[in-house]
Amino acid sequence: MEGITIVGGTGAVGLELLEILAGRGISPERFRLLASPSSDGRTVPYGDGSLTVAVADVSTCRTAFTESSVVFLAAGAEISGRLAPLAVECGCVVIDNSSAFRSDPTCPLVVVGVNESTLENFRSPGIVANPNCSTIITLTAIAPLRKLGRILRITASTYQAISGAGAAAMQELEAQARAWASGDRLPMERSGRQMIFNVFSHDSPVDADGVNEEERKLERESRRIFADDDLRVSATCVRVPVLRAHSEALHLEFDQAIDPDAARAELETVNGVMVVDGRDGAKFPEPIDAAGRDEILVGRIRRDAGVPDGRGLAMFVCGDQLRKGAALNAVQIAEHLQRL
Amino acid sequence: MEGITIVGGTGAVGLELLEILAGRGISPERFRLLASPSSDGRTVPYGDGSLTVAVADVSTCRTAFTESSVVFLAAGAEISGRLAPLAVECGCVVIDNSSAFRSDPTCPLVVVGVNESTLENFRSPGIVANPNCSTIITLTAIAPLRKLGRILRITASTYQAISGAGAAAMQELEAQARAWASGDRLPMERSGRQMIFNVFSHDSPVDADGVNEEERKLERESRRIFADDDLRVSATCVRVPVLRAHSEALHLEFDQAIDPDAARAELETVNGVMVVDGRDGAKFPEPIDAAGRDEILVGRIRRDAGVPDGRGLAMFVCGDQLRKGAALNAVQIAEHLQRL
Repeated sequence: MEGITIVGGTGAVGLELLEILAGRGISPERFRLLASPSSDGRTVPYGDGSLTVAVADVSTCRTAFTESSVVFLAAGAEISGRLAPLAVECGCVVIDNSSAFRSDPTCPLVVVGVNESTLENFRSPGIVANPNCSTIITLTAIAPLRKLGRILRITASTYQAISGAGAAAMQELEAQARAWASGDRLPMERSGRQMIFNVFSHDSPVDADGVNEEERKLERESRRIFADDDLRVSATCVRVPVLRAHSEALHLEFDQAIDPDAARAELETVNGVMVVDGRDGAKFPEPIDAAGRDEILVGRIRRDAGVPDGRGLAMFVCGDQLRKGAALNAVQIAEHLQRL
Repeated sequence: MEGITIVGGTGAVGLELLEILAGRGISPERFRLLASPSSDGRTVPYGDGSLTVAVADVSTCRTAFTESSVVFLAAGAEISGRLAPLAVECGCVVIDNSSAFRSDPTCPLVVVGVNESTLENFRSPGIVANPNCSTIITLTAIAPLRKLGRILRITASTYQAISGAGAAAMQELEAQARAWASGDRLPMERSGRQMIFNVFSHDSPVDADGVNEEERKLERESRRIFADDDLRVSATCVRVPVLRAHSEALHLEFDQAIDPDAARAELETVNGVMVVDGRDGAKFPEPIDAAGRDEILVGRIRRDAGVPDGRGLAMFVCGDQLRKGAALNAVQIAEHLQRL
């Protein structure tokens, strides 16, 4: 059996990749786990046992890549930019979780369930880019509705979990909750801010137009994945004190009138989406219910009367940022390419 | 000096009214504090001293109203519906914090700083309705921009604090944080749900169209306060685990191109609004910074490129739900009517 390399094996996405792959029954011998020097010699859980992590340097990477058919990169854009070409040189399919190759026209940008058909022309070795978590969650929820009409505009306000800022930030949010409960000073060394009992604008750089990088990703990647350069995207990306799952308030504009009941019925047929829209019991998607789940939860499906002619649709969606929003989609890409 | 009656004096809004009025230097002798039987004989802090609460029944209310020139009602729509007419009968100006009279054309619906001019035709005795907190926060932030163009559409996604569900819900959120930190079962007796590390669709009833009451209030009240029946409002109202201040992601559509810098400059001149838009240091409005403040914080001011012809503007706002969102606006109405 051919090897599977994970770079960033001790990070939030790396650990989730391992949990999903363990669930697929993949033999532990196949893994080559690499991470930064601070993780040298660490072990991480895998099924009933554990795996040992090695330091990712050019030599260990080359060895691991040579023994592997698929490489998952989950250590940030800079490391992906350096290591992906090396992995391709070694003959691997690279599934990159960073933004490094998402705008590269030679690298497919794929949400499985939305545009995996673009993988038909993919030839190994090469790089497949895994989209941004918010993009994956948004498009998984709304792509099925394109059967009912063309989507002209997406207005998205996000309620993003701290998991997107990495495992250390998640630990600090938990530490802040404990410190608050004890009346101690809140630890802020990693995040630089109070996260508990607060929300804050997404912590990515803001450009000269006042748009942050997360919002730009949602714009750019949605257009590319929907293959629609005219798609208009208005996003406000915000973090909330939630551990794992992102939520989004979506307001959509179609080219024709959309019946909310027809939209709900369509979404109920889709694998990877779970409709949670219990108006009577007021049971709607919540991030604690989406955490650890493969499906994107969709609810509050209703007409958006702010758009004329019945062409508006609103909904609220939640998806596990580490699962479908990152690791699960990466694994699904590998499965689609028959690399597992 | 004439009396000031507060009904609901032990609730979250009632306590905030007292704090603001204490700051205005109002003599404690002027107050008549009434609340439900469970608060009978309770004392609440006022300045350096305290005030005693009496049970609100028809007899105590009639006595208090007869001795008062202004009555603040902050005990919910049902009680307002019963007590406001009695207070008017007793010759009072009623400032009602509930939704009971917000659609009544004989009762002005007023955000001070936006449409206090509608009070010119008000004659005492009578009822002035204090709008919903989300409406006050939204309109305070965007009304000044009408100098630059007509607002055609508001798309609002809210991040609402637990304070809006009352003092008991706030206490339960804090209790959940402590229980989580101790590894205990989360207390959910009051809210019926996990609030800590979660977000959830606003807990108001959902109508047959799938729109919840909070979203309807934002629609209806915004149209009435802006005196624009054609104003289109698309709202998704969501609660987040924050104690006091609401946040909102606003996407606006104007009838003409809007320069974000001109919008920022206009907002910087407005009393009651504070622009927090530090792109370089990524310092934007946060609910913990808005808590306890009179001003609505506004930032992330930028073009919304999802609207054609430069007619879109996006921003992120935070405002203390109990202060400008409720008690402060009520006090400002009373001040405008020279009742304090």
